[in-house]
Amino acid sequence: MADRPVAALGNRTPLEAARKPNMDEIAKRGISGLMDTIAPGVPPGSDTAHLALLGYDPYETYTGRGPFEAAGAGIDLRAGDIALRANYATVDDDLVIRDRRAGRIHDTAQLAKAIQQIKLPGVQILFKSTVGHRATLVLRGKGLSHEITDSDPHRTGTKVLQVKPLTKKAAKTAGLLNEFSRESHQVLKYHPLNKERVGQGLPQANCLLLRGAGVAPHLAPLQEKFGLESACVAAAALVKGVCRMAGMKVIDAPGATGGVDTDLNAKCEAVLRALETNELVLLHVKGFDEASHDGNAVAKVQLIERVDAMIGSLLAAADFIVLAVDHTTPVSVREHTGDPVPITIAGPGVRGDGVASYDERAAARGGIGRIRGKDLLPILADLMGKGKKFGA
Amino acid sequence: MADRPVAALGNRTPLEAARKPNMDEIAKRGISGLMDTIAPGVPPGSDTAHLALLGYDPYETYTGRGPFEAAGAGIDLRAGDIALRANYATVDDDLVIRDRRAGRIHDTAQLAKAIQQIKLPGVQILFKSTVGHRATLVLRGKGLSHEITDSDPHRTGTKVLQVKPLTKKAAKTAGLLNEFSRESHQVLKYHPLNKERVGQGLPQANCLLLRGAGVAPHLAPLQEKFGLESACVAAAALVKGVCRMAGMKVIDAPGATGGVDTDLNAKCEAVLRALETNELVLLHVKGFDEASHDGNAVAKVQLIERVDAMIGSLLAAADFIVLAVDHTTPVSVREHTGDPVPITIAGPGVRGDGVASYDERAAARGGIGRIRGKDLLPILADLMGKGKKFGA
Repeated sequence: MADRPVAALGNRTPLEAARKPNMDEIAKRGISGLMDTIAPGVPPGSDTAHLALLGYDPYETYTGRGPFEAAGAGIDLRAGDIALRANYATVDDDLVIRDRRAGRIHDTAQLAKAIQQIKLPGVQILFKSTVGHRATLVLRGKGLSHEITDSDPHRTGTKVLQVKPLTKKAAKTAGLLNEFSRESHQVLKYHPLNKERVGQGLPQANCLLLRGAGVAPHLAPLQEKFGLESACVAAAALVKGVCRMAGMKVIDAPGATGGVDTDLNAKCEAVLRALETNELVLLHVKGFDEASHDGNAVAKVQLIERVDAMIGSLLAAADFIVLAVDHTTPVSVREHTGDPVPITIAGPGVRGDGVASYDERAAARGGIGRIRGKDLLPILADLMGKGKKFGA
Repeated sequence: MADRPVAALGNRTPLEAARKPNMDEIAKRGISGLMDTIAPGVPPGSDTAHLALLGYDPYETYTGRGPFEAAGAGIDLRAGDIALRANYATVDDDLVIRDRRAGRIHDTAQLAKAIQQIKLPGVQILFKSTVGHRATLVLRGKGLSHEITDSDPHRTGTKVLQVKPLTKKAAKTAGLLNEFSRESHQVLKYHPLNKERVGQGLPQANCLLLRGAGVAPHLAPLQEKFGLESACVAAAALVKGVCRMAGMKVIDAPGATGGVDTDLNAKCEAVLRALETNELVLLHVKGFDEASHDGNAVAKVQLIERVDAMIGSLLAAADFIVLAVDHTTPVSVREHTGDPVPITIAGPGVRGDGVASYDERAAARGGIGRIRGKDLLPILADLMGKGKKFGA
């Protein structure tokens, strides 16, 4: 939701321009401030931002997107697993990439099943197709490392790359992944589905491009860290992945698309149900990202107003309510930036500060001051009576 | 520039008392805040302050002033080099110090040339005279350590000290420096220049007092860290040293003295030229330090007003302009203190905050809140579109 002043909105941000009585009511009841989700001036990713929002130090726990994408796809990761993002792609006989998405193939369940049969010495493979041409690969075993290069050259017309180790101890992992690349190419090349695709004039999905290797960290579950039974309602795979790894129940709301057209009522109902059995529920609305990446300030204002209406139905449902943003995405930049984001915490006991609007500049005058993302959940947990004393 | 309220200025700080329309204009256009250059309550040195201002963690990169002074003197340091500050001094036959500055000797080029001939086992020596009685010594080789004591007792009437190791692994370095002390004493004692000085009734420069050992850190250049081609215009050797080690071009402005009489026009012109080929130019005005160390609030107000006039010529020259101070030096204290300093960032996209003056108390109500020195450059780089995303 957060932005920079937009000329077309009279030098206001979308949050300043939108009519949002419910968010403003929360700001009036609550205490506001600015938050550097990662660190001042550092543009957060969706994954690192949510690690921080759930109280983990992103610099200690994040090595790459792979593990969070794998967890988002429902794979139960163990600390030490190496996970990568994979693309089904089309290569010619010389392994030159012709289509990085294999004609945007989508029905890949059979292919994944065949890939899952591949055996590599000394490690276990977990492979799963996710959405469209996307899949995720996990290696489980001893002595693995994420310090390797991608096999995906990120463009067509060039050969698939050899995975290279960036450190000595990563040599074994690089070797295993190169073997996986060869084997999976053989498996896919002769798979009946690709024969069918050739017959239909479609590009074959005869190769897997690997990237984003990361090692699954040990994240102490929120139940253990703060004594909070928790759940999340989110559409974005990376967000779901982080929540799953934090021990939260991940609730799928029908109609939640991650776009501006997402079904907010379905999300709201999922939250209300989750609140019956959970002490903490995270509701993530992804659509702002889409409007921001499109540079569409008006769509952003409209979505803020729709989300505000939904929040009206949640006001009475919880003792505490926190409004936060995972990162700023200015419509003028169309990318994540490092500007701090506004936060407001309302609930019994907060030291109200006279801030009457939930927006970037009002929050800068709030009683919280300026904090880091990883400090937000400890502050909330403490207000909820779950603070963990350090010392005697 | 920064200070505490001064009774003689009607309980205003020099920044609050000065007439400075250009700085105030920048504050009006920009976003303001307070900055702890190192950490709250910690008085910064010029070297550590500039490390932080350039985005480096001073606690990770600073071990002593030696390396920055050596770099400021134009020595190209390599990571791992041990550098020390040296004074030409006068000792008697028992090595008791008679003058710590050898009669404020200044023409020492011949002496330095002779010293540079000294050979030590297994290490390379780089020795350079700087300003007046000052010089800098660099040891380059394997297994060196800066964890040693000074040979300079910091007072006259006592003997030159043996350099002692503070850790086991520093024993070799301490031994080498004691050998250097003996050798350099021999070289200087019999140098023709000292014969001349005896003839002229001047104290001999027959000894080198060593202090401020530090190890040259690896500083990732600003070009690599932020993708910024950068330069600095500064007179102070320590500031120039930090900038050089950060990969900035160091531009000497004729007439820049580091005092209150410095030629601000020359500095301003150097900045304008540097902006033609650089994305980031740091302009450092040292004179405030002199006025502050003299306890002269009026001189400080006058220099603020002169600097403000110069800033008028820079307003149109850059998209972004940042006003910052490296440390507070209250005229009442005459030393660096740990008070936070005011900062203002003006440029496209900043969330203006209604602050209308560039001074300590106005900045405390600004939209930036309170940040650390090392966060300033990441924030600026992000606003300039050079933010480095962490995560996916």
